[in-house]
Amino acid sequence: MKITEYNETKIQVALDCIIFGFDQEQLKLLLIKRDFEPEKGKWSLMGGFLKAKESLDEAAVRVLHSLTGLSHVYMEQLSAFGGVNRDPVERTVSIAYYALINIQEHNHELSNDFGAKWFDVEDLPHLIFDHMDMVQEAISRLRYKASVKPVGFELLPEKFTMRQLQKLYEAIHGRKIDKRNFVKKINSMDLLIKQNEKDKNSSKKGSFLYKFDKTKYNRKSENGFTFGI
Amino acid sequence: MKITEYNETKIQVALDCIIFGFDQEQLKLLLIKRDFEPEKGKWSLMGGFLKAKESLDEAAVRVLHSLTGLSHVYMEQLSAFGGVNRDPVERTVSIAYYALINIQEHNHELSNDFGAKWFDVEDLPHLIFDHMDMVQEAISRLRYKASVKPVGFELLPEKFTMRQLQKLYEAIHGRKIDKRNFVKKINSMDLLIKQNEKDKNSSKKGSFLYKFDKTKYNRKSENGFTFGI
Repeated sequence: MKITEYNETKIQVALDCIIFGFDQEQLKLLLIKRDFEPEKGKWSLMGGFLKAKESLDEAAVRVLHSLTGLSHVYMEQLSAFGGVNRDPVERTVSIAYYALINIQEHNHELSNDFGAKWFDVEDLPHLIFDHMDMVQEAISRLRYKASVKPVGFELLPEKFTMRQLQKLYEAIHGRKIDKRNFVKKINSMDLLIKQNEKDKNSSKKGSFLYKFDKTKYNRKSENGFTFGI
Repeated sequence: MKITEYNETKIQVALDCIIFGFDQEQLKLLLIKRDFEPEKGKWSLMGGFLKAKESLDEAAVRVLHSLTGLSHVYMEQLSAFGGVNRDPVERTVSIAYYALINIQEHNHELSNDFGAKWFDVEDLPHLIFDHMDMVQEAISRLRYKASVKPVGFELLPEKFTMRQLQKLYEAIHGRKIDKRNFVKKINSMDLLIKQNEKDKNSSKKGSFLYKFDKTKYNRKSENGFTFGI
């Protein structure tokens, strides 16, 4: 039995970018309208094809930027989607990347050229090909990560209330969380520094502000602590 | 600005299988000798090229079986490796898969056709291309998983001693673990059912045997508990 030698079967390799956004209230997904057949005019993830002289990571960055104007978005590889018929025209393997960004921070970059639009993750339109499978997997990955380490602190203001933090987790998990349990769990993680100031915007009494204690987090996580909600 | 339309750049897509094995003592890695140039005769992961009519998962299973005789090994996708020059002959994107198996259970399957051989993970030979990067990433993934959920219980006998369980975790993490801390942590996870029998092989006094409580694990993990060492 011989190991297969270099062969003639070449495949089209694509990148698809799954960009979630948080606007302090809800989790959203960035979509564009596909500009060519098949499925022209349908909502789609930001996708493109790998070129010969760029790495996968470089291609994902290029595709995202050329289709939306977004830059400085740190994307992580999700996984490779390789169903035989995922693209009806030509056999394509797609490497999906994902990120979770602060919508306000990036809004000025979003280019109108493709009419990139934010959709509520709970209310997505029909997507082309297997893009919905990709999105579902990305959401699972995000929720899984949130259950083992603090995610999303960079999406909040530098000082935030417990309510704002809870909204972030509710947005990621797509469900309401019991407030008392949430506060208890957050406190047990011991990762917040309570400030001496209150936020008076949400209520007359005001709510305490907190900061994320990154130093303590780094130290604890090096010692094998896992956190998460 | 146009979305790139269907294009002519086709890429060679490969699969590489990273098979770890546990023999109740150490973590090992299965390697074969590459059968064609370049790097003929060098140690390599089990790899092959994607065919037009098979999915990525099917290809990984086929490649593993054809090169080692192994079957019924559940592999998970690790990630896609897409450095421009990872293969000096031709631009290749490789999708890496990995698994952790019980060596004794599969030894009868291992085919001698390629001289597949187990190596101690702490003492690997030089590997071709970026296979060592792939292996490192797979090891990190395994360790990360072990830190958030119980892994590897299927690699142990149905009833096992605390010492055997500790050896599994030491093999995964590549370092000795303090026995008292280990026992304390395992007990706090509350996932073992202590048996009424002792294993007398390792010592005259004998060591208690335990079973993994899968029902309790499923219930706890549905309620958001994370475990791990």
